[in-house]
Amino acid sequence: MKMSFSHLISHCSLLGLLLFLLAIVNAVPKSEEYKTYIVHMDHTHKPTSFLTHESWHRSILKSLLSSPANDDDKELLLYSYSHVMHGFSARLTPSQLAEIEESPAHLATFPGSTGKLTTTYSPKFLGLQQNFGIWPAASYGEDVIVGIIDSGIWPERESFNDEGMSPVPQTWKGECENGTAFSPSYCNRKLIGARSFSKGIRAKGHEISKEEEFDSARDFVGHGSHTASTAVGNYVPGVSHFGYARGTAVGVAPRAHLAVYKVAWLKGQVELPDVIAGMEQAILDGVDIMSLSLNFHGQIPYFADAIAKGSLSAVEKGIFVVCSAGNDYDFGTVTNAAPWIATVGAGTLDRSFHATMTLGNGVPIEGTSYFPESVFITDIPLYYAKGNLSKAICNDKALDIKDVSGKVVLCDYSTNITTSQQILEVQRAGAFAAIFLTDASFSLYAEKYYIPSLILPTASGTLVKEYVTKVRNPKVKDMRFVLTRYGTKPAPQVANYSSRGPSPVSPGVLKPDILAPGDDVVAAVAPTIPYIQVGKYNLSSDYQLMSGTSMATPHVAGVGALLKSIHPKWSPAAIRSAIMTTAYAEDNTGTVFKSQLLDLESASPLEFGAGHINPNKAMDPGLIYDMGLQDYIEFLCSLGYTKKQMSVILRQTQWSCSNKSIHDLNYPSFMAVLQTKTRYPVTMKFSRVVTNVGNNKAAVYRAHLENIPTGLRISVKPRTLTFTRKYQTRSFVVSVELDKEFPFVIYGFLKWVDQDSHIVSSPIVAISL
Amino acid sequence: MKMSFSHLISHCSLLGLLLFLLAIVNAVPKSEEYKTYIVHMDHTHKPTSFLTHESWHRSILKSLLSSPANDDDKELLLYSYSHVMHGFSARLTPSQLAEIEESPAHLATFPGSTGKLTTTYSPKFLGLQQNFGIWPAASYGEDVIVGIIDSGIWPERESFNDEGMSPVPQTWKGECENGTAFSPSYCNRKLIGARSFSKGIRAKGHEISKEEEFDSARDFVGHGSHTASTAVGNYVPGVSHFGYARGTAVGVAPRAHLAVYKVAWLKGQVELPDVIAGMEQAILDGVDIMSLSLNFHGQIPYFADAIAKGSLSAVEKGIFVVCSAGNDYDFGTVTNAAPWIATVGAGTLDRSFHATMTLGNGVPIEGTSYFPESVFITDIPLYYAKGNLSKAICNDKALDIKDVSGKVVLCDYSTNITTSQQILEVQRAGAFAAIFLTDASFSLYAEKYYIPSLILPTASGTLVKEYVTKVRNPKVKDMRFVLTRYGTKPAPQVANYSSRGPSPVSPGVLKPDILAPGDDVVAAVAPTIPYIQVGKYNLSSDYQLMSGTSMATPHVAGVGALLKSIHPKWSPAAIRSAIMTTAYAEDNTGTVFKSQLLDLESASPLEFGAGHINPNKAMDPGLIYDMGLQDYIEFLCSLGYTKKQMSVILRQTQWSCSNKSIHDLNYPSFMAVLQTKTRYPVTMKFSRVVTNVGNNKAAVYRAHLENIPTGLRISVKPRTLTFTRKYQTRSFVVSVELDKEFPFVIYGFLKWVDQDSHIVSSPIVAISL
Repeated sequence: MKMSFSHLISHCSLLGLLLFLLAIVNAVPKSEEYKTYIVHMDHTHKPTSFLTHESWHRSILKSLLSSPANDDDKELLLYSYSHVMHGFSARLTPSQLAEIEESPAHLATFPGSTGKLTTTYSPKFLGLQQNFGIWPAASYGEDVIVGIIDSGIWPERESFNDEGMSPVPQTWKGECENGTAFSPSYCNRKLIGARSFSKGIRAKGHEISKEEEFDSARDFVGHGSHTASTAVGNYVPGVSHFGYARGTAVGVAPRAHLAVYKVAWLKGQVELPDVIAGMEQAILDGVDIMSLSLNFHGQIPYFADAIAKGSLSAVEKGIFVVCSAGNDYDFGTVTNAAPWIATVGAGTLDRSFHATMTLGNGVPIEGTSYFPESVFITDIPLYYAKGNLSKAICNDKALDIKDVSGKVVLCDYSTNITTSQQILEVQRAGAFAAIFLTDASFSLYAEKYYIPSLILPTASGTLVKEYVTKVRNPKVKDMRFVLTRYGTKPAPQVANYSSRGPSPVSPGVLKPDILAPGDDVVAAVAPTIPYIQVGKYNLSSDYQLMSGTSMATPHVAGVGALLKSIHPKWSPAAIRSAIMTTAYAEDNTGTVFKSQLLDLESASPLEFGAGHINPNKAMDPGLIYDMGLQDYIEFLCSLGYTKKQMSVILRQTQWSCSNKSIHDLNYPSFMAVLQTKTRYPVTMKFSRVVTNVGNNKAAVYRAHLENIPTGLRISVKPRTLTFTRKYQTRSFVVSVELDKEFPFVIYGFLKWVDQDSHIVSSPIVAISL
Repeated sequence: MKMSFSHLISHCSLLGLLLFLLAIVNAVPKSEEYKTYIVHMDHTHKPTSFLTHESWHRSILKSLLSSPANDDDKELLLYSYSHVMHGFSARLTPSQLAEIEESPAHLATFPGSTGKLTTTYSPKFLGLQQNFGIWPAASYGEDVIVGIIDSGIWPERESFNDEGMSPVPQTWKGECENGTAFSPSYCNRKLIGARSFSKGIRAKGHEISKEEEFDSARDFVGHGSHTASTAVGNYVPGVSHFGYARGTAVGVAPRAHLAVYKVAWLKGQVELPDVIAGMEQAILDGVDIMSLSLNFHGQIPYFADAIAKGSLSAVEKGIFVVCSAGNDYDFGTVTNAAPWIATVGAGTLDRSFHATMTLGNGVPIEGTSYFPESVFITDIPLYYAKGNLSKAICNDKALDIKDVSGKVVLCDYSTNITTSQQILEVQRAGAFAAIFLTDASFSLYAEKYYIPSLILPTASGTLVKEYVTKVRNPKVKDMRFVLTRYGTKPAPQVANYSSRGPSPVSPGVLKPDILAPGDDVVAAVAPTIPYIQVGKYNLSSDYQLMSGTSMATPHVAGVGALLKSIHPKWSPAAIRSAIMTTAYAEDNTGTVFKSQLLDLESASPLEFGAGHINPNKAMDPGLIYDMGLQDYIEFLCSLGYTKKQMSVILRQTQWSCSNKSIHDLNYPSFMAVLQTKTRYPVTMKFSRVVTNVGNNKAAVYRAHLENIPTGLRISVKPRTLTFTRKYQTRSFVVSVELDKEFPFVIYGFLKWVDQDSHIVSSPIVAISL
């Protein structure tokens, strides 16, 4: 709510103003409290007397008449921006803001909102090979600089050692900033830049105290170290999560350089002004790839969306920007969905974590477990309260200490209680260990294994229940933990939490773009926060499991770095196109990916986009769907944004639009959005231009349509694209015809196939909103 | 005690005998119980009608008149031996034994004594490099077969995978025996043989039950897997002991083949008949190196010492035999000291295990810790009962639960209580964590860290005591565990427990021969026995710390394998000579090794032999002190053994002795033994023959005498040895002159030095008994 008294005083003399303010300061209304705003300015209004944008912005803030008098010494300006956007972020009272908004140079104001890191919980997987495919082809990402906008870095983690790294590129303009527990000496050939941006978080009234944060690029929460080591971590043998998933940790682009921009503070809180400042600095410093594993709640128009705006600036500079889709467990929740961003969803790996158990009768049982200690259990009585439902399901306060103390407790499945609640009860009652039966596809986060526990599907649990009820003194002969299995099927699956499309902001662009490993990823963390409490002790580990689209994102950033190394001239759109058109959508059982959200029913491109990333194929896609700034301008125009809104995004006052349909945005996927009022049959046309980037100059591509369901009729014109040289372009039109209403989403694939076995695949999706 | 009634019945008819026995069986005196004996026979008495020794031995046992009647179906024979010794082991009553001893073919009988594995507790270290020195020179031990006589093997441990291994040598005659949880399919190019020998342990009345043993070569206790992986383990990245000492595990000869002979059962119990059977089979199978990390209590004459006898047989076949010195914490306790055996003492590594702590006042403290969990402790009150001695030293039952619960307890040093007792008290009282001050050089075994603990020397503890007594609410700000440091000084040290010389059986031969890493060695173990109990849970790990001369021994076996690969024609004596004369005796502070047993005073060759093994030097020793069977015969004669005793060792009835002095045994070290009755001054002469094995045909060596203390006068004649070709030998005489009595031990070094910087070093030691 804006107060209007600033207008009252706008013509007073300075002295009068000060006196006036001194008089009212003790009565400043609540709504006159400072808040953080991001203010977009039209830079053509900058008086030439100001050499820099910042000096202009400072002058504007200094001349504000409505400033409370005792705040003279307080810096209003947080950051001045000129790359990501034109404008600044500042702590302002409503009066001050109103004053600024009076200015003809003012374009738009957005609240400095609070975002969060997209982390859920679980493990990791990588599929690149030494001396084969994209790794050697890309020299493992050599000379490419990946900027990670996140919670900073724990530089001592071995993932950030610079053994085998080439020198810092000459073009690099970044820095390693001094700060709490951080100094330039922490940088090396791997970690070439480290900066932090905290004015936004401070403006929210948070202190950066030593107890819970480092006032520097040093990572307190571990998220930034995790994503950075996932993208570009050097080789670290013998890494594990408390013994699980043991192996060599390595980033996707192990020879790429790392620049870190800390914008997430205090257990993952992210303030918009800091994010924009970090993105801006990354652009200035000269990163090639920008990875953002963070998002802001709510799906807002692009002109109000700082990440979208910052990303567009970066993309204009040729920077490939990768963002997480979000962890919102539902359709229609995808964020960071602008068409110039590579939006990443999270897939599972074919790796799982186990414990084994032998019943007293010799029957061996294997179940899921993440219990973090190598406990060694032998000959312990097994307890199951058959006939007492509340005890049998380990209901809250149901168990009796004298019944379960020193025993392995079997807890039955019930929809009335979650496994998380059950383990708390079992722990409270002092049981030795537990077996949980469940029908849920997902049951217990890794950091909730407070006591040695095994999760079993109810089906396999039958054996245990039979044994425990038939034998007089049932016991568990042994239990072993910390076992890792590979080749789990089906994999990949679309992770439960991964935010799904469509994006309400622009449903006509299929999002997310791509699926990447995000579930149970092991990477470097900071040592400052314990992982789990077992008994009375907290446990911690240098490398830990994390899950989320946050973890999927740096995988794509890493692949982007590899592609950038092979194809330095490719645009960000070309890099994403290569990644998308070479993705696969069949799991290791040969059928389409299953969705954890849909109880392992088949997923659709609204969940997995073009499919799962396939780096070795991405380096030679055959054709690319390229785009440049003008394509994005046409797209923005198609959204019906006003001139002012357009100029906020574009940071320019002049542009031209040909009023193209969103259908003609040269995207590597096709999205037909049908409204409830649509009259069937309906036909929609999508025009596209592809560029030949194959190594053979001449190539003939033929259109194949695959998995087209009944009710969806697709035609492609022409059906053959003939290229006589590299970089030649060809146009085609896809017609999508729908006979009648259909349930939510249907889709098939268009695949352009040439004689060199290039397969250029795009999903064609129709959704009914 | 022998009963004589067997004589009474020796002329009865068979029927009469049976009746007689039936009559007495229920009254069989206690002394008529079966015991296991090792019986040496003169094989020249074998009637030619018996094709094999075994059939002869069986016939002898079958024809025993004094067998209890109801034992017809019981097999008396355990093993028949013809390589290690001539004879057999059998379960016999005193009467039966007496009957056998009547036979003219009988040579000697020894009780089938019980030995133990030489393991103490702690961590590991290796100093060999890829592509440098002995490793590539020896092709990492390729084609050499190392036989490990121990507790068997856990074949699934990654150390025993055969990646990179050459095929099984054609000469190999061994087998992979079927058994409980073991089958021939477990063998591969690394593990080429696996057999078990349990008749001896069964004869002692032990059952090989599934609960506590595998009736096969499978390792139950982990000791054999540990020694085997230390000697020849393949590369395994990412190994650690609960996170400590993390790194790649690899054996000393990673490309050598492994043959396993399980002779240790039931938590390390070893029966003599099984050991001899294992050694015998190893000889038959064709091993090149034999490693025995076991010993039998008591130092007995060589004719009664099964390992000595078995080893001599092996050495005669050209097998290099390495044995542990023992873990008996004192001088005069060294075992396995025969001059044909390489006797190994245990040294420490330059690696240590730590925890760190920050006091509430910000002072950081680092101490020793082996606590096996990555616990994460922050802001815990610190408790110290100043003024109450019993509580301050955490005396038994002194602490009050309400005082210490949830706190870090500081326990003061006292000679009245050990750290092991203190931690039990702290645990009993329910403290959260503990700090132990101590002046002892060794305080707490790794497997006794039941709660998070830190060991501090009392000197560094002053800071903590000052803080805790001066501050109102003292606290520990944080504590971190599982830290490993390298470069600890001084290192190596002679480990506390390592058995020292002289050997009472033959004090004239300096023993042990060599020091090798034995303290805190990390290697593979079996998963069947937990390592430590923390809280209510036992913890276990695939690779664990162990300490002992047991761990030192396979290091020397591995080096033996490397030398065998480079110098396949070298005798076992030549291999040991190379190892001994190239050893070093200065630690990483440039002074002579310190002895943990002597509170870190300087050690002497009675503790470290020739010094610490130095594999890269050992491959090119310049000169060797060679020996063969005749040298050992002369040695045995010099001990004054009877003809019968000699023939028990030598397994032959003919030999010749020239009555040489033990001083002239061609050993690579010199030992002057002075009796209390010796009249000073005294002069002793030692003659030796060295063989030129340098690559230069011509070489001139000059004698250097180093660190000769006053009171010890040494002269060498000649002072120069000139060689004109390889394998040429030269003799020299060392005169040791002592003026007067001296305290226990004095020593210096004779070093033959040539123009190619070969240094052929031997300790010259005088002891006063």
